[in-house]
Amino acid sequence: MIRRLAIIGVGLIGGSLALALRRTGYCAEIVGSSRREGHLQQALNLGVIDRYELDPVSAVRGADMVLLAVPLGAMTSVCEQIRDALDPAAVLTDVGSAKGSVVEAVRQAFGSVPPQFVPGHPIAGNEKSGVEAAFPSLFEGRRVILTPLSDTADQAVRQVGAMWRAAGAIVEELSVAHHDVVLAATSHLPHMLAFGLVDSLARMGDSDEIFRYAAGGFRDFTRIASSDPVMWRDVCLSNRTAILEVMEWYEDDLREIKQAIDQGDGETLLAIFERAKTARDRFCG
Amino acid sequence: MIRRLAIIGVGLIGGSLALALRRTGYCAEIVGSSRREGHLQQALNLGVIDRYELDPVSAVRGADMVLLAVPLGAMTSVCEQIRDALDPAAVLTDVGSAKGSVVEAVRQAFGSVPPQFVPGHPIAGNEKSGVEAAFPSLFEGRRVILTPLSDTADQAVRQVGAMWRAAGAIVEELSVAHHDVVLAATSHLPHMLAFGLVDSLARMGDSDEIFRYAAGGFRDFTRIASSDPVMWRDVCLSNRTAILEVMEWYEDDLREIKQAIDQGDGETLLAIFERAKTARDRFCG
Repeated sequence: MIRRLAIIGVGLIGGSLALALRRTGYCAEIVGSSRREGHLQQALNLGVIDRYELDPVSAVRGADMVLLAVPLGAMTSVCEQIRDALDPAAVLTDVGSAKGSVVEAVRQAFGSVPPQFVPGHPIAGNEKSGVEAAFPSLFEGRRVILTPLSDTADQAVRQVGAMWRAAGAIVEELSVAHHDVVLAATSHLPHMLAFGLVDSLARMGDSDEIFRYAAGGFRDFTRIASSDPVMWRDVCLSNRTAILEVMEWYEDDLREIKQAIDQGDGETLLAIFERAKTARDRFCG
Repeated sequence: MIRRLAIIGVGLIGGSLALALRRTGYCAEIVGSSRREGHLQQALNLGVIDRYELDPVSAVRGADMVLLAVPLGAMTSVCEQIRDALDPAAVLTDVGSAKGSVVEAVRQAFGSVPPQFVPGHPIAGNEKSGVEAAFPSLFEGRRVILTPLSDTADQAVRQVGAMWRAAGAIVEELSVAHHDVVLAATSHLPHMLAFGLVDSLARMGDSDEIFRYAAGGFRDFTRIASSDPVMWRDVCLSNRTAILEVMEWYEDDLREIKQAIDQGDGETLLAIFERAKTARDRFCG
């Protein structure tokens, strides 16, 4: 149970967690904070939060759980602001899609990473953003990865895990580095490919006509290219090494496909497509 | 109205067209043909066709409309088989995803492209295949591109167009070459990217774990990698030039993204992602 949860950044993720926790009565009070009062007013009107504070310092004061749900690029400055106002017993966690950079931001702001800080990442969300897109079942059956460090307090990890489980999620643990490579492969790389494809087509001469003939497969394939550009810029800058690494693996594979097409090598193409279909049917079936 | 429609290759596309035309009473009789009797028996049991012939020669005899819905790689041999059995007044059309290669297959089989042949391509389908996946509304509101040549008979184009419209489709015309580049960009390239991504991940060391953390975006993005590998091998071999051309444009774009990530150039990344989101929201809204 949480007495007072402070959510810094009340968007799709922070808002959906608030809705889920309010529905189950897991939180006595939820305080939201954000740079834009309009968003906070909207969150209040939608019944997402109990009250709001424009200043994150006031929001975290007296909270026993603080959730950082701001863009990755804002982590350091938010941590610097709230550092001295945090209750020493309060648990701090976040929802950033790249964990190495968040740990680094916290380290920079606090001098060292506090044992009460539990890095976290819910593998959920969609191409929408903003509190108006929030819904309470967003995390149901979805995985939340926690990446505690060696000196993170067990009790803090348990409290953050319990919060996510109360929202319906399956909680797992990975190391920071492992998380960042796995997410680069399954999420960050696909976003780069989809953004790249749509941009590539948009820049072609007769792009109106090109999109006109796009079928359902294209719509599904490019859905993630409708995601928030600022968030994805931040992800790219925050998880550079891992993203560049998986992009290089991918380029090798794409080169192999291209070469097989060029050489009319149907056997290689069939082998690649069959391996891919088998893997996809098995995992997403 | 069609008196007797012969469908060579009764899979998702051929079967769905048959179901749509039967529902509207646009065809008096539909004869199916395929290399596998089991598929034909299934098509008969599902009420997709009125009767079947294992031999395409018997299937096309007496038909006033013949639809080739076989894989691209089988076009030449099927055309060679049916050539002498076709009624001189019969209209011949196809559903291949690459038009240049089909026109070439027909030219090779017939000596020259008959005026009664109308190359066609319905921009519909999904990652499933086989007649058991067929459904009558597959073409409703979807585009069908016809790519008649300069000496294709107008009457034949009208008849093929009327057939697709009876199935609910929007019929348009493009040149063969234009069709092949547009489809390479909007369909063939995305399939290569999705097959390549899933294969790339499947080949990584801990692929089980990698797929385990894949979220909904990954599922949508890779749906087309569950498509029929044989069909896609044929598409690659049939539309080589155009696919290689768009793959090169795409590689340039991807290289730009990679470079921006490498250099921590958030401005360029944001510009690319914003352009992509705007285009995607506009066209797929």
